[in-house]
Amino acid sequence: MYEGPVQDLIDELGQLPGIGPKSAQRIAFHILAADPDDIRRLADVLRLVKEKVRFCDICFNVAEDEQCRICRDARRDPTVICVVEEAKDVVAVERTREFRGRYHVLGGAISPIDGIGPNELRIRELCQRLADGTVQEVIIATDPNLEGEATATYLSRLLIPMGVKVSRLASGLPVGGDLEYADEVTLGRAFEGRRYVDA
Amino acid sequence: MYEGPVQDLIDELGQLPGIGPKSAQRIAFHILAADPDDIRRLADVLRLVKEKVRFCDICFNVAEDEQCRICRDARRDPTVICVVEEAKDVVAVERTREFRGRYHVLGGAISPIDGIGPNELRIRELCQRLADGTVQEVIIATDPNLEGEATATYLSRLLIPMGVKVSRLASGLPVGGDLEYADEVTLGRAFEGRRYVDA
Repeated sequence: MYEGPVQDLIDELGQLPGIGPKSAQRIAFHILAADPDDIRRLADVLRLVKEKVRFCDICFNVAEDEQCRICRDARRDPTVICVVEEAKDVVAVERTREFRGRYHVLGGAISPIDGIGPNELRIRELCQRLADGTVQEVIIATDPNLEGEATATYLSRLLIPMGVKVSRLASGLPVGGDLEYADEVTLGRAFEGRRYVDA
Repeated sequence: MYEGPVQDLIDELGQLPGIGPKSAQRIAFHILAADPDDIRRLADVLRLVKEKVRFCDICFNVAEDEQCRICRDARRDPTVICVVEEAKDVVAVERTREFRGRYHVLGGAISPIDGIGPNELRIRELCQRLADGTVQEVIIATDPNLEGEATATYLSRLLIPMGVKVSRLASGLPVGGDLEYADEVTLGRAFEGRRYVDA
């Protein structure tokens, strides 16, 4: 419908996740009207990110060098590994400031329907990290959905025989939420995991 | 939270319309994992669009040359101009295949709250196009909201004394919609604009 490069831009934007044809069009017209310097900066950072950013050799978090900031940081506890699905989950956990150990990014979760089995994830690399006996505990922090649960179960069965403590994040009511809006599975988990309060 | 260029990318993406911090993060991680060639193509088209695409000297539609495809097309009726707010509205009207005249893109709508008055829009340029008497009718196709209506009223008062016929798009029930879900203003307009049916 549009002349040459405008349609190309709409098509390319439409390839990005969560951007449908209408949003792609709106963004394209914003770009047409925007300050050329702003758009040049966006184009530059797109290139830069693909040239500079890589994945950490140890934990597969995003990194600018062979190792990510966390793996390079000697103050981080090397005896605990938090296993997450994606690099963005590392950021979510970091924001809590509750965790001072290292990470391991699986690169997804087990999902037979999408053709993702244990071999498609960085599980072998996780086992290799446990080989020298430094790691005492693995905290499994996969997403609380079907795929995440399946991955957590698979990992637990694999890792416990290797002699490490394995733990999983607590399920329960989200803080700030309303009890009446909690789905029954969450509410059931909250009951199951209830804590007794001292008198 | 992220290392250098990843955070820069998230920040730049977050500047685009309709992309909040969460979407920006999701898109950034998609870009990190994507085929470098795909991202290079996106970066290239961003640059290209800013270098190549301009606005038509006559109607201010997007164009690759001094004049857009429609203004260059001798088969388009030069006696009718359809006035729209944005270039994307040209595409919406073109899709109907109902209109064979020319366009005029105002570049927005009158909105005192956003500091947009008639002088910020391409109204002077519209009047200049009417000067030689070729144009017989101006169809005002601004958005059916407060700003669009204000702009349409302003234009009608300005253009009618210049001796052109001025028309506006019909208001009424959207085709395929449900009467019970129509808001009262739309339903009121549908009554007001009702057409008598021949026996």
